[in-house]
Amino acid sequence: MLFDFATLPREARSKLLHSTVVPRPIAWVVTRLATGGTNAAPFSFFNVVASEPPLLCIGMAARSGGDKDTLANIRRSGQFVVNLVSADLSEAMNQTSADFGPDVDELSRFGLTTAPSARVDPPRIADSPVAMECEVFRLVDLDAGGAVVLGRVVAMHVAEEMMLDPARYYVDTPKLGLIGRMHGGGAYLRTTDLFEMPRPPAPERT
Amino acid sequence: MLFDFATLPREARSKLLHSTVVPRPIAWVVTRLATGGTNAAPFSFFNVVASEPPLLCIGMAARSGGDKDTLANIRRSGQFVVNLVSADLSEAMNQTSADFGPDVDELSRFGLTTAPSARVDPPRIADSPVAMECEVFRLVDLDAGGAVVLGRVVAMHVAEEMMLDPARYYVDTPKLGLIGRMHGGGAYLRTTDLFEMPRPPAPERT
Repeated sequence: MLFDFATLPREARSKLLHSTVVPRPIAWVVTRLATGGTNAAPFSFFNVVASEPPLLCIGMAARSGGDKDTLANIRRSGQFVVNLVSADLSEAMNQTSADFGPDVDELSRFGLTTAPSARVDPPRIADSPVAMECEVFRLVDLDAGGAVVLGRVVAMHVAEEMMLDPARYYVDTPKLGLIGRMHGGGAYLRTTDLFEMPRPPAPERT
Repeated sequence: MLFDFATLPREARSKLLHSTVVPRPIAWVVTRLATGGTNAAPFSFFNVVASEPPLLCIGMAARSGGDKDTLANIRRSGQFVVNLVSADLSEAMNQTSADFGPDVDELSRFGLTTAPSARVDPPRIADSPVAMECEVFRLVDLDAGGAVVLGRVVAMHVAEEMMLDPARYYVDTPKLGLIGRMHGGGAYLRTTDLFEMPRPPAPERT
């Protein structure tokens, strides 16, 4: 069944993309307001896209009336922290997805504790098992508003009990218990049903 | 535990990013060679990042000696097809991740059937439940080689039996049976352990 995106309404394109490109990792992004407060919001148009330099990519659509608070703060400050979301934080993460005004500090409203970052101004979410401090690498503005944010990771925090072998940078990924985003208004995925496929051997090149 | 990315070796940064930013969706990318053949390779530094315009983002690291075949073909032709990977295609997808020479057609070698695309030249993988025909929207070149590819989706194919309600663009996402990428050399995830969280109500804005 073919869907021609040139003639499809925007809402249809959005529905098709959200319900097929899965599972999506979740970035719970903390930014600093000009007034000094903090903002937190989740994004699932997100992934790591390079390790040299270490880059994350986050799509931040416009909302009616312009940039979301997160993007406005990133444009102004050039900094943000991406916190990853374990299953026990899922309810709090979901609550912060509502469109609060810029004056609402989602973190304190939902009882979340922050910890200072090492290299950037916005704090991290203390209970998140992984947090990445980021600086803007590139902003790709979209004609319809919003932007695709490429962020350079300058530091990463991993909860100590999640490290298998810190000296060799081995993380116990299943233990992180992260969730992913699936389809529709509210489907999520636990990272439990794992399987292994060994990398294929390098082929002989002639 | 803090990892300062300014002082960490590249391999350590790569290991930390691969083992924490999960679950990652998988793009099985088909491109056309200058000689007319096809190339297929999987990428998990991938996601949808916008719906207006409809954009996919794929990070394509350099390999020793320059661009991977996929990126070289995209630079030359400006086109590619992203096929999504269901569990029954996982073994074939994994086989195509080996670094074959540009003269090897991974699709025919591993018994995969292609179907013509509607709006771009490279074909799609016929057995893939979802395929997205893409044109380059922006290439962000990286100093270390490779690029972050932003591709505009011009058409999407969804297998007919995967549509719940074609007129309303409803896809049966769990039925797609897609897999995601996890940590290490070979950990993958089935999209089976789902849960629902309703979107929070819109807050009163004062």
